[in-house]
Amino acid sequence: MKNEFWKALHCNVTEWMKEAGGILEQSFTDQLDVQYKTSYDDLVTNMDKQIEQFFIQRIHQHYPDHRIISEEGFGDDVTSSEGILWLIDPIDGTMNFVHQRRHFAISVGIYEDGVGRAGFIYDVIADDLYHCIKGQGAFLNQAKLPMLKDVKLNESLFSINATWVNKNRRIDPEIMQPIAKSCRGTRSYGSAAIELAYVASGTLDAYFTMRLAPWDYGAGLILIEEVGGKATRVDGSPIDLLNQNSLLVGKKGLQEEIVQHIKNEVSKGKFIQKAD
Amino acid sequence: MKNEFWKALHCNVTEWMKEAGGILEQSFTDQLDVQYKTSYDDLVTNMDKQIEQFFIQRIHQHYPDHRIISEEGFGDDVTSSEGILWLIDPIDGTMNFVHQRRHFAISVGIYEDGVGRAGFIYDVIADDLYHCIKGQGAFLNQAKLPMLKDVKLNESLFSINATWVNKNRRIDPEIMQPIAKSCRGTRSYGSAAIELAYVASGTLDAYFTMRLAPWDYGAGLILIEEVGGKATRVDGSPIDLLNQNSLLVGKKGLQEEIVQHIKNEVSKGKFIQKAD
Repeated sequence: MKNEFWKALHCNVTEWMKEAGGILEQSFTDQLDVQYKTSYDDLVTNMDKQIEQFFIQRIHQHYPDHRIISEEGFGDDVTSSEGILWLIDPIDGTMNFVHQRRHFAISVGIYEDGVGRAGFIYDVIADDLYHCIKGQGAFLNQAKLPMLKDVKLNESLFSINATWVNKNRRIDPEIMQPIAKSCRGTRSYGSAAIELAYVASGTLDAYFTMRLAPWDYGAGLILIEEVGGKATRVDGSPIDLLNQNSLLVGKKGLQEEIVQHIKNEVSKGKFIQKAD
Repeated sequence: MKNEFWKALHCNVTEWMKEAGGILEQSFTDQLDVQYKTSYDDLVTNMDKQIEQFFIQRIHQHYPDHRIISEEGFGDDVTSSEGILWLIDPIDGTMNFVHQRRHFAISVGIYEDGVGRAGFIYDVIADDLYHCIKGQGAFLNQAKLPMLKDVKLNESLFSINATWVNKNRRIDPEIMQPIAKSCRGTRSYGSAAIELAYVASGTLDAYFTMRLAPWDYGAGLILIEEVGGKATRVDGSPIDLLNQNSLLVGKKGLQEEIVQHIKNEVSKGKFIQKAD
């Protein structure tokens, strides 16, 4: 696709993100319908579904030959990354949306034949739109984001939820405990899209999680690549765009140092869940 | 002191908070002078010192008989909580200020004979001012904050840094691991003042930390009390306003449930650091 195509798409998506954000802010005056999906900490609301439909309708109208993978399952049945593929999370951080009414984001990533071409993450309440077209720089609202400079582990802010240094079924907590202790500070915000946007903008130096779906990381990976960051599964293997993955993203040297640490610990026999 | 006195003080402090916030936002265009205090993760900047002086000058000018305890040590030598005492943190979350240029706050708590009378926490970049005069309700900007309603542990958002479920010298990590696992989600923002303000506003249900100084919690405790929340040391003992404390604040039943859990674990012989 030509530059003009991506430029026009960028305008469209920016407009849709802002409109959808407005709908979400408005919704706080109404009663939310909250349902549980797989477990008591896996929430979905009527607004997740409404915003997903909002995007799907517009994409099908403007780009009828594009395909969509989205969190609430109203998208298409996608089995390959050929052609143009949209990865959409209508509300990333639904628990924050329900409990906090802030710290949630709309995430839209667009891939062409498996290559990230445009990424958008909108932190609605902060009114921060992180966006890029591949090769043209990444932006936070109007401000161009600088390329990431490397940082030492002991001077880094590392986003890792307490879950991963606590007993859990995906990773031996002893693997990440020394990293969480050696960094300058750990943070956890409860929205992968915001945490990925924070890595892209240098607000965080790295982000670790054991399980994310394509709609969670689709946009974030494009933004992070655009500013020179690195993203792999936590064992250093490449991310599979169509499936659940563990994820370790960050400034390049720092990301590689943490991957190497994880590999060393795994080689000593410590447990880590393989990709699904 | 009479109502009128506190009303006028509220106006003064609100004005000073906004002015100081403006100075901090402006400072991002200058080069920060960052120094280390006790360790590589204990930072102070020229701006912490400048904002502290800003408040001390104004307080000494308007209220010459009040005393001040403040983080950078330019306040008074205070050994009792008699009279009117200001607890000031010019930048709470200095690490966030340096690394993130967001997620930091100015915290000002004012006590009369040991009783909290007025609390102010200003999340500068979000432009969120949490404030109260005792007995007149707490506010986030113009919106009155509702009294806190109780919540079950497994439906709660709990702010606890990964540090406290990891190896550390202040608490056996096994004490808080089951709580971090049983709550709906954990968060960590790196500014105690913001985390206390979030508890007061219901954005978080509880907040746990093993070490805070009076300037960190001075304002937050007043706000949380005003909306019916509960605050003690993590073992349930009362907070000493003039010293370092561990801190567990939250919605009343939830706070008491977590305290009881900690007491049970300690009675089984698990390690916890006593107050300094």
